[in-house]
Amino acid sequence: MNIVEKFDMLGIDNAPGQESLQKSQKLDLRGDKIPGEFVDFSHGDVDAHLPTPGSFEVFSRGFFEGGAQAYTPYRGRKTVLEHVAEKLSAFNGAKIDPAQNLILTPGTQGALFLAMGANVMPGDKVAIVEPDYFANRKMVEFFGGELCPIQMDWHTSGKSGIDLAALEEAFKGGVKLFLFSNPNNPTGCVYSFDEICTIAALAKKYNATLIVDELYSRQVYPGVTYTHLAPQKEVPANLITIIGPSKTESLSGFRLGAAFGTAEIIERMEKLQAIMALRCPGYNQAVFFTWFNEPAGWMEARVAEHNRIRDDIMKVIEAAEGVTARPTDGGSYLFVEIPELEVSLHQFIRIVRELAGVIVTPGTEFGPQFLHQFRINFSQDHDKAVDAMKRLLAVMDRYRKN
Amino acid sequence: MNIVEKFDMLGIDNAPGQESLQKSQKLDLRGDKIPGEFVDFSHGDVDAHLPTPGSFEVFSRGFFEGGAQAYTPYRGRKTVLEHVAEKLSAFNGAKIDPAQNLILTPGTQGALFLAMGANVMPGDKVAIVEPDYFANRKMVEFFGGELCPIQMDWHTSGKSGIDLAALEEAFKGGVKLFLFSNPNNPTGCVYSFDEICTIAALAKKYNATLIVDELYSRQVYPGVTYTHLAPQKEVPANLITIIGPSKTESLSGFRLGAAFGTAEIIERMEKLQAIMALRCPGYNQAVFFTWFNEPAGWMEARVAEHNRIRDDIMKVIEAAEGVTARPTDGGSYLFVEIPELEVSLHQFIRIVRELAGVIVTPGTEFGPQFLHQFRINFSQDHDKAVDAMKRLLAVMDRYRKN
Repeated sequence: MNIVEKFDMLGIDNAPGQESLQKSQKLDLRGDKIPGEFVDFSHGDVDAHLPTPGSFEVFSRGFFEGGAQAYTPYRGRKTVLEHVAEKLSAFNGAKIDPAQNLILTPGTQGALFLAMGANVMPGDKVAIVEPDYFANRKMVEFFGGELCPIQMDWHTSGKSGIDLAALEEAFKGGVKLFLFSNPNNPTGCVYSFDEICTIAALAKKYNATLIVDELYSRQVYPGVTYTHLAPQKEVPANLITIIGPSKTESLSGFRLGAAFGTAEIIERMEKLQAIMALRCPGYNQAVFFTWFNEPAGWMEARVAEHNRIRDDIMKVIEAAEGVTARPTDGGSYLFVEIPELEVSLHQFIRIVRELAGVIVTPGTEFGPQFLHQFRINFSQDHDKAVDAMKRLLAVMDRYRKN
Repeated sequence: MNIVEKFDMLGIDNAPGQESLQKSQKLDLRGDKIPGEFVDFSHGDVDAHLPTPGSFEVFSRGFFEGGAQAYTPYRGRKTVLEHVAEKLSAFNGAKIDPAQNLILTPGTQGALFLAMGANVMPGDKVAIVEPDYFANRKMVEFFGGELCPIQMDWHTSGKSGIDLAALEEAFKGGVKLFLFSNPNNPTGCVYSFDEICTIAALAKKYNATLIVDELYSRQVYPGVTYTHLAPQKEVPANLITIIGPSKTESLSGFRLGAAFGTAEIIERMEKLQAIMALRCPGYNQAVFFTWFNEPAGWMEARVAEHNRIRDDIMKVIEAAEGVTARPTDGGSYLFVEIPELEVSLHQFIRIVRELAGVIVTPGTEFGPQFLHQFRINFSQDHDKAVDAMKRLLAVMDRYRKN
């Protein structure tokens, strides 16, 4: 394989946020445009859900402090690491030594990339879940790993529905690394306590490394029990947890992420960060001081707000024949299943953009077999989002296969 | 090779900025500490040389603009790309289409990493210069390339002294990628017009890819002729230029970098950025609007200030027996050569930190053979820097081999 072939695998044309760059193609447009406010469901709307209060002020303080905040060690500034370690320990239940077990990164994507780069050698077998975050598959391919997809039947509430027998078979077959997100992206389902304990115990038994992406674990809806993996009794020796304030906290514009876990892996991630981007942006690191330090009641209100948006979009979905989605357990995603259409999924998504003024992300970004699904990020203005979903489904009706 | 062995090669203990994390070791301390203000020559002092005027204000505007600045396509926001393309075209002389030939990155390190990741496959032969930027070697090793070092005798002014015959031999021997910095890091020498034209012509002749790191090309001292590579008549089809505002402009705390050149390579870099850190931090991208837009006379004054610091540190160096450095052509580095000592270079550097309160970077970071050199970044307060160099050399006298 040469470098051109390698990168041909890493397609980004349909990736969230890239839609405005797509080349125009002839679309089978039926009927008129449906008027309404443009909604981009490919990512959250930080104008509708503002960044954590005080984040700008803390950034400013960092900037005016000058060199001490601009140039930090690769892992991050000591005082910031200490704050984050303390808060994450309290939240997650894991023991985190700020000098040994933690690294700050340019966004949670940076944390994932470092964790994968610090663990995958060409030819290594790596297990990922289908469906799961679209970059997981691409990172395995970039680092030359061999992809072992584990299927997940997410349609039953109270668990993720991951095929644990297949996961054990994969470990038996030589998989040395398993990466998954909880809450799952794109379905929003949360793994059960039993699932998490079994995954951790299996990884320990087969001496595999676990990377668990808990990015959305602060945004869990009432009635759902969330289980952090790291503090469980039986965990593998090599374990990294990924988290960051880009989603629920709306701080994505600062590119802040964190990874914590096994000291040896964190050390390798630090070495990779040294040649990747040197550090999480220095001034931006100061914004971590607002994390887990939000005003009283702020986080609860934010989760309640998203709960309401989820419920009202679910009502629209449930009213449409043949359209379904599992109500989100945690996070801001819904993975919407649609009936057979007379156009392909990718064509339909471009048509929806044109006729309804709505952007969604195709299911194929989360696994090649998801040809009847799309993902929405419902961290949007409530009314605009509900109306956008109605318009999308109205356009869909024009393309149903009889 | 397993992942642990792979990362063992990527040592960072002696890397610039990591000194505060070094484990303590028994040192052969001779004599008392020499009092004076602590100076960290491992990187520039952005408190002594402040960030570009208006950078904070432009960042603030970006933050308060909200989502449009927070979430940009992977390459960067369209309006920012257009500004940067226009300014870089005017500065460099190359033709840069903002939609095809340019990507914004998390720091210049991010640009380098993306360029290398988008070109190096395991087993590829990659030529780098010795001495050159310490991360170049590590990136080749991380991506599994085979290192082909090209020596440079930088002691004669008016040229870099790169061994062009060896470079041609390397191309003949199968090297498909050559990466170098101009001005050179750590020596501060600038490549001659003939050297640049020959490098470009050789790369074209042998169908090799060139990555030229022109990070410090805005900071060139009077009497030096600087030659940008990209606009020359004969250039290879695959060419990437790296630059950013982290050094002369003191904007490192924002992590801003840029790469421009061949559309196909930029496209691969974009795909890699999508899984590495998504984008150059969104809000921070706004700061690019200050780049090449500095107040009239500001850049000239900054270069003149650094010229004065360079000259006065050179006086201190030239007055010390057996100590030499080539006066910097461009940038803020001096690569100081010292005589035989009774302690190793790495011991000496730790001793200097202890007894003189001065941090410098060992020559071995720039090539394993540089056991009698250290690098300083003299972008410091003038008086503190001159005094720090005097203290360093006074400590050195205690360790001279007879």
